[in-house]
Amino acid sequence: MNLPTCKLFEGFTNRHCECFFDLIEETTCKQGEWLFREGDSAEQLYCIRKGAVELLTSIDDAIELPITILRSEGNFFGTSSLIAPYTYSLSARAYQDSELSVINREKLMHQIDRDPELGYIIMSNLAKTFLDRLKETRQEIKIHFKSLMKMMQY
Amino acid sequence: MNLPTCKLFEGFTNRHCECFFDLIEETTCKQGEWLFREGDSAEQLYCIRKGAVELLTSIDDAIELPITILRSEGNFFGTSSLIAPYTYSLSARAYQDSELSVINREKLMHQIDRDPELGYIIMSNLAKTFLDRLKETRQEIKIHFKSLMKMMQY
Repeated sequence: MNLPTCKLFEGFTNRHCECFFDLIEETTCKQGEWLFREGDSAEQLYCIRKGAVELLTSIDDAIELPITILRSEGNFFGTSSLIAPYTYSLSARAYQDSELSVINREKLMHQIDRDPELGYIIMSNLAKTFLDRLKETRQEIKIHFKSLMKMMQY
Repeated sequence: MNLPTCKLFEGFTNRHCECFFDLIEETTCKQGEWLFREGDSAEQLYCIRKGAVELLTSIDDAIELPITILRSEGNFFGTSSLIAPYTYSLSARAYQDSELSVINREKLMHQIDRDPELGYIIMSNLAKTFLDRLKETRQEIKIHFKSLMKMMQY
């Protein structure tokens, strides 16, 4: 049996895969089910095997604003479990019936203490993902700025 | 002599500080001087000791859109030097006369190969910084959304 496909695991050697395999548990969730809420203690990291998960932020008690929908296999979420102060900064809800791999934060941190190279690879992949998201945001700012410039010309 | 104050080095032990110290070179730059351009090969990471540096993205050949100004001591930039494909995604220009610490990517990667824990700490700090920036962006989206809701109520 292999590790699930996940962008966080890119660059793993066989050694990393073997010791990581014991950290993973499988779970399923039904469409509409909440996996965690913004502000909860971030104890688990999730990888999507099948299905889709929506990430949301609460505007007030009544309104949850969708930030993104993670659809493809290999996407991950709950990354606040990797970064102090380990508090989820978004809520997560199953957008479809889904199959997920779950990694417990404490077990993962224990493994990283024993094998810092594992931590280096994971945190490099995580930083790359965040940088890609920041670049997307900047791209949107550029598009808005260009539209504004065009409007001002006419 | 101590390591410069830098958010990337938070959590370093004495051992990390000692081996890191040899990687750092000091430089100065004059207000308005370009340190690198968007699209350049990212060979160096920078920490601000004194002064301020502006990060910009080019809209077209004629216009550079400011993204942020890094003012305080301890801020760092040129982070694309830590993440493949090692290409600067923004341009950097001295906003004031500045004193900078410069870290060569190849030397740093060589050191991380020898001491993966060093890499784990740096990449964790980097991921935390990126996550903080993403949270700021989301906060701005929330503010715009709330303004929009108020406008629609009246």
